[in-house]
Amino acid sequence: MAQSKSPFADCTRFLNGHGPRDPAEKLREALAELRPQEAADIYGEGEMIEGFEQDVASLLGKEAAVFMPSGTMAQQIALRLWCDQAQTKRVAMHATSHLQLHEQGAMQVLHGLEPQLLADSKRLMTRSDLEALQLPLAAILWELPQREIGGQLPSWEALESELLWAKDHGIRCHLDGARLWEAAPFYDKSHADICAAFDSVYVSFYKGLGGIAGALLAGESDFIEASRPWLRRHGGNLISMYPYVLSARAGLARHIENFSQYRNKAVELAAQLALLEDLRVVPAQPQTMMMHLHIQRDSEALNAANERLAARTGVMLFGKARELTPGLAKIELSLGQACSALPAHEAASLFAQLLAESAEG
Amino acid sequence: MAQSKSPFADCTRFLNGHGPRDPAEKLREALAELRPQEAADIYGEGEMIEGFEQDVASLLGKEAAVFMPSGTMAQQIALRLWCDQAQTKRVAMHATSHLQLHEQGAMQVLHGLEPQLLADSKRLMTRSDLEALQLPLAAILWELPQREIGGQLPSWEALESELLWAKDHGIRCHLDGARLWEAAPFYDKSHADICAAFDSVYVSFYKGLGGIAGALLAGESDFIEASRPWLRRHGGNLISMYPYVLSARAGLARHIENFSQYRNKAVELAAQLALLEDLRVVPAQPQTMMMHLHIQRDSEALNAANERLAARTGVMLFGKARELTPGLAKIELSLGQACSALPAHEAASLFAQLLAESAEG
Repeated sequence: MAQSKSPFADCTRFLNGHGPRDPAEKLREALAELRPQEAADIYGEGEMIEGFEQDVASLLGKEAAVFMPSGTMAQQIALRLWCDQAQTKRVAMHATSHLQLHEQGAMQVLHGLEPQLLADSKRLMTRSDLEALQLPLAAILWELPQREIGGQLPSWEALESELLWAKDHGIRCHLDGARLWEAAPFYDKSHADICAAFDSVYVSFYKGLGGIAGALLAGESDFIEASRPWLRRHGGNLISMYPYVLSARAGLARHIENFSQYRNKAVELAAQLALLEDLRVVPAQPQTMMMHLHIQRDSEALNAANERLAARTGVMLFGKARELTPGLAKIELSLGQACSALPAHEAASLFAQLLAESAEG
Repeated sequence: MAQSKSPFADCTRFLNGHGPRDPAEKLREALAELRPQEAADIYGEGEMIEGFEQDVASLLGKEAAVFMPSGTMAQQIALRLWCDQAQTKRVAMHATSHLQLHEQGAMQVLHGLEPQLLADSKRLMTRSDLEALQLPLAAILWELPQREIGGQLPSWEALESELLWAKDHGIRCHLDGARLWEAAPFYDKSHADICAAFDSVYVSFYKGLGGIAGALLAGESDFIEASRPWLRRHGGNLISMYPYVLSARAGLARHIENFSQYRNKAVELAAQLALLEDLRVVPAQPQTMMMHLHIQRDSEALNAANERLAARTGVMLFGKARELTPGLAKIELSLGQACSALPAHEAASLFAQLLAESAEG
């Protein structure tokens, strides 16, 4: 366990998110969100948690919802339920799905699911990808927007056509809406309209909404009731989750109306970054507040330059660049409240310095 | 979702635990426990969570530990690891084990484990029970103390003899130490001494220690490293758990030295309750701060009388009596900090009133 201080500990401005994840601030926010007489939730019961579940279910246009500690639980449970109902273990999802990349094979190991992977790791899935699937299939998972490819979204027409194909083939549609809040401005539709054709929807509270942690699974009442024993099996029916519930409720109220603004800032910044050499913005025009930068630099040189720049200017541009291929690094940007203190032209100018300094390395 | 107020909302004194689980108080406690410069844990990393894991591992005499959202996760993961290592799916545990009664068959459904149940639901397991087990077995689970039978503990000699039998047969020993803190005064040994013969240990932070939620799994370093991918699979590798970590750390510091005192109060109370008719204390002399009361009353009549008594006196004796058989109800008592404001003779006198009033019903 390193006793080292973060190289960004003294930064005062941040390009990403809502600034540093400060525990004191978040605990104070949860405390301020607590209403008089609100009691602790006990094993998923209580007015605070049930009321919030119902409010978010309504926002998503679904009958019911259940609060869960993580999306990893929520999505495995949703797919397992659809598989049990369809009496097949087969599900389909994009090659970069969270379940495929970040869950240590849980859907296979814990649930015996058999995923078919769609598209390749660099582009959105299409209706043609679906048409090539081997049936029967219990469910298809859509991630809106797709994080691993820079927050890309299919057009509304493409999405509708894909969902229609699934419905026509009796396949359940599950939405990985970890960043659904971020997707809404692109479609210019209500959350409920976006979710309408999905049988089950997972949303997250700690990404765009800035909560401490937590997720929610929404769908029809029977489906949500059936998910609760699975939540207990996973070990997620905690005696109390109020720090997460309160923080989620505060984050939803604070940010829900702001995602257009965050996205506009991302578009503005992307246009300026596109002028820099050795840097490519993916997607070229951000569809959400997220974008990836592919930079022709060694990732270690880039990270070192980023830390030097942060120490010199007090601005944290990003956390960590990752190597895509030798000499090509990837940075994920996800704008939020913090960047209102950092004009796009200033951020772009800092990236120009970063490129210059990491080239020297 | 009922908008009803708890029948105990106006109580000012409590026989059980550390008083009501008040979210404002717990959030304030977590905030006060936060040290200057302590950063949020991120996906299980960070000085706060790693430091606490190491501190509790040391207390338990183990090399390493991992903080988890729940014991349900911790114990499934421990048993799964021992099974994978032993290349058998067979484990043994008491008939009233948490995994058997409260986890919706998770160990079987998620992990394919095949439990053999020991003893019956009313008594401790013995070495004879172990000797009757069918081998091979990957692991045996001991719960110290056993909650479902009133917090009973085997004698140190009996426990040593059982553990020795398991070692002699190459079987891993897992400790369900959800209430290990409560068990220590009975053995008059350090936590490390009690844990020494166990290969893996789970402890809980929200029962005797009064934390918001949270658990920990301890063992050798390799074992703990191997548990982390399973934590992720279960969906328990949350982006941040600091509300739980801080609350656990505060609870450990506050209560760790007090369990003898809580137990002494339980023994004193039990002696007075034993004088009442139609009431049996299980075990007759509490070994921990926990005891069960078996009362010859209809459970609904008992609950109604308990609520009336609470309204009249401002004292909450217990939450809910459960029916064991028609006309026989069970109440669980688990004493903590709260009962220092309630002398044993007064509590016993309130139970006498409760018995009188529930007989009338």
